Amino acid sequence: MKTINIADKHKLFDEAWTPKIVGDLNGSQVKLAKFRGEFAWHAHENEDEFFLVTKGTMRMRLRDGDQIVGSGEFIIVPRGVEHCPVAESDEVHVMMVEPASTVNTGDLDDARTLTDLERI
Amino acid sequence: MKTINIADKHKLFDEAWTPKIVGDLNGSQVKLAKFRGEFAWHAHENEDEFFLVTKGTMRMRLRDGDQIVGSGEFIIVPRGVEHCPVAESDEVHVMMVEPASTVNTGDLDDARTLTDLERI
Repeated sequence: MKTINIADKHKLFDEAWTPKIVGDLNGSQVKLAKFRGEFAWHAHENEDEFFLVTKGTMRMRLRDGDQIVGSGEFIIVPRGVEHCPVAESDEVHVMMVEPASTVNTGDLDDARTLTDLERI
Repeated sequence: MKTINIADKHKLFDEAWTPKIVGDLNGSQVKLAKFRGEFAWHAHENEDEFFLVTKGTMRMRLRDGDQIVGSGEFIIVPRGVEHCPVAESDEVHVMMVEPASTVNTGDLDDARTLTDLERI
């Protein structure tokens, strides 16, 4: 049980769209990721997703209108809702909280689908 | 489904040790609180608690040694672990993620026990 510095953990990796696990709570995981460019439209059937931006600005594309999420802001995407995260700045640092069962690309089988996340 | 600015939400209340609900995900709630002074030793039998500091510095007293948590840092207190949050700076702004069943004072019945949290 140690204090985790989010910015220090973000320095430990460079790849975009590859969430790293940094904590566990109540069957969910805390994950850190870097976003660059645009991801892919997808939804998670059974998982609500929490995204907190800690650096840069993210655009969350949604079918009923985009949301802009800056540093110190968060958005919760409920289960079943199609979304597509986009880096509005060159690079965005994100902290996510979501059930351990969550696959990054949800219902989409994509080249970026990850099934075994690294812990840092 | 809207972007939430954490600092703006913290401006909406002044009381210390009174978490406000700002989001729901997967049976858990996202809460914001202000800490001033010292809380009370307690534990949560069934809930892990996530504390992210967004302003100031918190000391998390633990039976096996304190942890200092500054702005941009978090700590997860596993279920069953006794803890006592203390504001190390005059005021600390905190974001918590914990199951909706979580009572702020855990196993302790205290004057500060809250059973009906406000949503902001």
